[in-house]
Amino acid sequence: MVVHPSILILRPTRLFFLKPSLSLLNRTLSINPQRFSVRCNSSITTESLNSDTNETGRSGSRSAPPAAGTQQKIDVNPPRGTRDFPPDEMRLRTWLFNNFREVSRMYGFEEVDFPVLESEALYIRKAGEEIRDQLYCFEDRGNRRVALRPELTPSLARLVIQKGKSLSLPVKWFAVGQCWRYERMTRGRRREHYQWNMDIIGVADIFAEAELISSVVTFFKQIGITASDVGFKISSRKVLQEVLNCYSISEALFGKVCIIIDKMGKIPIEEIKKELALVQLPGEAIEELLQVLSMKCLTELEEKLGAAGEAVSDLKQLFSLADKYGFSEWIQFDASVVRGLAYYTGIVFEGFDREGKLRAICGGGRYDQLLSTFGGDDIPACGFGFGDAVIVELLKEKGILPEISPHVENIVCSLDRDLQGVAAAIATRLRGRGQSVDLVLENKPLKWVFKRAKRVNAARLVFVGADEWQKGMVGVKNLSTGEQYEINVDELE
Amino acid sequence: MVVHPSILILRPTRLFFLKPSLSLLNRTLSINPQRFSVRCNSSITTESLNSDTNETGRSGSRSAPPAAGTQQKIDVNPPRGTRDFPPDEMRLRTWLFNNFREVSRMYGFEEVDFPVLESEALYIRKAGEEIRDQLYCFEDRGNRRVALRPELTPSLARLVIQKGKSLSLPVKWFAVGQCWRYERMTRGRRREHYQWNMDIIGVADIFAEAELISSVVTFFKQIGITASDVGFKISSRKVLQEVLNCYSISEALFGKVCIIIDKMGKIPIEEIKKELALVQLPGEAIEELLQVLSMKCLTELEEKLGAAGEAVSDLKQLFSLADKYGFSEWIQFDASVVRGLAYYTGIVFEGFDREGKLRAICGGGRYDQLLSTFGGDDIPACGFGFGDAVIVELLKEKGILPEISPHVENIVCSLDRDLQGVAAAIATRLRGRGQSVDLVLENKPLKWVFKRAKRVNAARLVFVGADEWQKGMVGVKNLSTGEQYEINVDELE
Repeated sequence: MVVHPSILILRPTRLFFLKPSLSLLNRTLSINPQRFSVRCNSSITTESLNSDTNETGRSGSRSAPPAAGTQQKIDVNPPRGTRDFPPDEMRLRTWLFNNFREVSRMYGFEEVDFPVLESEALYIRKAGEEIRDQLYCFEDRGNRRVALRPELTPSLARLVIQKGKSLSLPVKWFAVGQCWRYERMTRGRRREHYQWNMDIIGVADIFAEAELISSVVTFFKQIGITASDVGFKISSRKVLQEVLNCYSISEALFGKVCIIIDKMGKIPIEEIKKELALVQLPGEAIEELLQVLSMKCLTELEEKLGAAGEAVSDLKQLFSLADKYGFSEWIQFDASVVRGLAYYTGIVFEGFDREGKLRAICGGGRYDQLLSTFGGDDIPACGFGFGDAVIVELLKEKGILPEISPHVENIVCSLDRDLQGVAAAIATRLRGRGQSVDLVLENKPLKWVFKRAKRVNAARLVFVGADEWQKGMVGVKNLSTGEQYEINVDELE
Repeated sequence: MVVHPSILILRPTRLFFLKPSLSLLNRTLSINPQRFSVRCNSSITTESLNSDTNETGRSGSRSAPPAAGTQQKIDVNPPRGTRDFPPDEMRLRTWLFNNFREVSRMYGFEEVDFPVLESEALYIRKAGEEIRDQLYCFEDRGNRRVALRPELTPSLARLVIQKGKSLSLPVKWFAVGQCWRYERMTRGRRREHYQWNMDIIGVADIFAEAELISSVVTFFKQIGITASDVGFKISSRKVLQEVLNCYSISEALFGKVCIIIDKMGKIPIEEIKKELALVQLPGEAIEELLQVLSMKCLTELEEKLGAAGEAVSDLKQLFSLADKYGFSEWIQFDASVVRGLAYYTGIVFEGFDREGKLRAICGGGRYDQLLSTFGGDDIPACGFGFGDAVIVELLKEKGILPEISPHVENIVCSLDRDLQGVAAAIATRLRGRGQSVDLVLENKPLKWVFKRAKRVNAARLVFVGADEWQKGMVGVKNLSTGEQYEINVDELE
């Protein structure tokens, strides 16, 4: 293995400035589950202040080499843009993932997963997507180009092709997996996030889109988000396609145009026009495109494109199904939505907060031609991705981020060093009945035990004292009612 | 971003030989949950047969560049040494992880997680460990040396130092995380695995070790493994230490000696002796060391080292506690166990199958001085790691690998294209009651629906026909009893 002593080179100004502020921030901000993901952002802000350190790396990689005989000090923060999950943040993550899984289960989806490390080739598409520029890629020791997956859909497509005829269509799969993007760090943007995906493979009908949007709506309801908090902007890539068709624009250009259009609202409209002109779109087509993309009303679109085209009929079907499913109030037509992934071919949708404070909460659409770009036979498909970051921001905004406490059914201790083995035996007994036990592993005073019981939120304290134990009895205290009694150990349930 | 056209260079012999066999294998082996992880191994065997391709990469990275106008064919297999988790394998993984979590909960441990991508510096120890040679490391775009974590303990230590005084000791944390090692591929060895870790930070007493071994025993019992299937070999690094002390061997050499000793049984004893001599261990010390390491009886060890030393007293205490906990029959003293990680300082243990067919199932020990190697203050600590691969092999060997079927409470369909919206409304209603529904999203014949119902293991079929629906009725068929009836949709529960 190649060792790189260069990584230990010291940049003293940075070390001096950064280390104390970071560790202070981490200590202050990591106490409350409400602060989930805030710590990371704040650290980033601190780093950004120090502009010459921007994008130059985690301080740990640049700490001083240990003098002979002294210890090496590592950076105690996770690498830039990544997170630790201490217990409080892990409880929130578990709560979120459980909701993802519960909704997926209710919709009859089966869970799958893929390697977090994939072949880079899986993500090399030609449309100039942001995601490609942000690929976390490297060469492994076998000189293979690999990448930390930036999204789950290409892996899913790969697995579908691999399984081939052994799959019974339609496939309804979901996944909750970590994805990586090497991005410039800004507030609320990290380099990793977890993404909930649901995909339906093998259904050409707009029912698939309706089923997926319905799932997300169910998820929102489940965690307390209403249609007045969140909406879905819905359009179809076929809108763009039909406009481009009028100008005999080549199919090959379609993906590129979508990617440029997706930047609307992020860069000035003049830039968009320039980029569209750069890919040889005639000025007239650009003007018409932008006019159509500004439409927020399906009737207006129908007047423009006619009712015969698939763009309008797909959208009309989806709005009609929304009515049947009961999620009409959540959705609205918005022609400006195209989404940033090259492979979408039909309906696209995007969940947004109605106050307009946050980035897209989730997004998805139909990708009927992804499999053939990998050399497989195309199967109609659609899906969505739903990250774990923006939703937590939204719950905070709305003041409904749950406070999830730790909990244990019993705390068991002995009052005497010689009885610690007995306490262990009692813990074993309770665990054998499926109960959770925080066993006090050292001889500690009762005052300490009560403090611990409070911290771990124990429901009951079981303690073994010498006098009671001689009679085969143990003490029990119900920690919510305060009720205290002695009981024969054999009767302890 | 740098694009590497070189990755598309074709090696025709490989492509020709490998692709068909691999895809055939995958199709054959991916059907049954019993086959969990076999697919991957088998692919590897196939690859290894083709010796000139060994370690040269996944075929996908070397496929032919697409001719103009044709499609690029990607390798549909996951990168070498990694796994996909299609639904059947994912169900098994979920079952395993749920058992990990359930046992950890019973022992009052809180779940945590860390980034899968860590700073390489976290794993650079000086003892010559195998794990360091196998580091999956690279330089990111910010020129930072990073690594896919090969184990979880260094991240845990980092987080403990970061949290500092805000942590209430003892900390009892568990994690289930993916770890990576860039190894030569052999049967049953992959480059990634998931590892269950439980760690106790802040308990100097051997009670911590007992609690941890008890957890693993509880896990084994929970999944049907008995003390006649599995045992724990137990020793202490202090045994080695006390022998070395007699020869005034420097503390600095201790870690290196442990790593060499850990190779016993893997390489010839003469090699071991050579390596020990190479680190300047006197011949006499080597002979004595090897003699002590062959001991399988604690009394014999006591005769050799005396009862006063910590090695013997720690071990005696652990065996006495095992009695209290009730896991004596699972453990045995074996001085040859030292474990392969440099940071262990006291008790070490290793779970093994009594038939001797498999590698170690799990391993752990005390690491009281890890924090100071990272520049933190030392806190007594111990923990274990338990991988997801060998245990599945063992369950297969014993014929008790569970077959976990998919399950859905309802399959809902319409018998008429016009009633698909009604079927969607019924599905929404049932889901609103927390029930799972596989909604048939296309207009399919009943025969197809029954086949689907069987595959997804639906408990009940709900179908909407035109005549019944006119009366507000739907058909219901209990798929286990075969009972069929009509019911008013409002009464459907």
